[in-house]
Amino acid sequence: MQPASIERLAAAFARLPGVGPRTAQRLTYHVLTRPEDEVRALAQALVEVKELIGDCQTCFNLAEGPQCVICADSRRDPSVLCVVEGPADILPIERTHEYRGRYHVLGGALSPVDGIGPGDLHLEELYRRVVDGDADLHGVKVSEVVVATNPTTAGEATALQIGADLGQRAPDVVVSRLASGLPVGADLEHADEVTLGRAFAGRRTI
Amino acid sequence: MQPASIERLAAAFARLPGVGPRTAQRLTYHVLTRPEDEVRALAQALVEVKELIGDCQTCFNLAEGPQCVICADSRRDPSVLCVVEGPADILPIERTHEYRGRYHVLGGALSPVDGIGPGDLHLEELYRRVVDGDADLHGVKVSEVVVATNPTTAGEATALQIGADLGQRAPDVVVSRLASGLPVGADLEHADEVTLGRAFAGRRTI
Repeated sequence: MQPASIERLAAAFARLPGVGPRTAQRLTYHVLTRPEDEVRALAQALVEVKELIGDCQTCFNLAEGPQCVICADSRRDPSVLCVVEGPADILPIERTHEYRGRYHVLGGALSPVDGIGPGDLHLEELYRRVVDGDADLHGVKVSEVVVATNPTTAGEATALQIGADLGQRAPDVVVSRLASGLPVGADLEHADEVTLGRAFAGRRTI
Repeated sequence: MQPASIERLAAAFARLPGVGPRTAQRLTYHVLTRPEDEVRALAQALVEVKELIGDCQTCFNLAEGPQCVICADSRRDPSVLCVVEGPADILPIERTHEYRGRYHVLGGALSPVDGIGPGDLHLEELYRRVVDGDADLHGVKVSEVVVATNPTTAGEATALQIGADLGQRAPDVVVSRLASGLPVGADLEHADEVTLGRAFAGRRTI
């Protein structure tokens, strides 16, 4: 019913997350109405991102070159490490402007049912950074590790594992976990019981 | 905060319709996790669709080559033309399997406020097809024109114009308009008054 090149583009769009066949079709027709240089810019950006982006040698964040923009930024506090599951978790934390330390990207979370064990994550590299300090920092040691894995079963299990391992290997380093509780703007009536339980357990004097 | 190539891809994604900055970011991270050949396939499909797709010489539908797949299909009934605003309108009509004639794509609808007049649409080409018959059909004449422009002010105005023009130039040709009324599965309670009014006006004996 449609030319092959249109079917191919719609099929390629439909492989993107959250894009069903109808949206893929709509995006394809949109592309056909746009100037050729705009479409070429998208195609070029797709190819380039795959060519240029690799892992940061220090923290495994996405990087163009050996170090990511955060590790390469000398204004970041090198004595605090924030541990996240994936590179996508860094952007929301950066948007808070609350954190000025460095990161460590695990590449996932412990999940025995999915076959993801400690050897599949960058845990040893984390412990090495904490114990030895980052190679590019010439002796500055880590004093705190903030574990910011997701508040899910896998994320919690990973946080507990990191807490236990660092308790043994670097007992002087503070290991903390992001607070769990009611999201700002939420109402009690619709809070789930686990979140509400966490909010009680983590209550603070005002 | 992010490498330039990632920012460029996110910006390019954000130009697609329905893709906000957050979704663009998510799509970018998704692309980074996919194999290189899958990403290259999308980039290639984008470039190819712009290179290969043009207007059908007969009906102005999207085509790879001089004629679209529908005009090139000899099993289609050449005596009926369905007039649509854009190529994207053809797919939903084809999905109904109710229509076996050919199409004519106007390239929009009459809208004086947007500066779109009769000269901006493929109206003269439509009238020529109706009066003279399609060049590739050697004398088969059009007996009916089904106007399937959108049920909007612009679409209705365009339909009225086509009806008036063809009434003068080809008085023997039946000009019809898609029925307006309640969508199947809708309930009366939530129908808007214009649609319900149309449903009354177009009521049929059962």
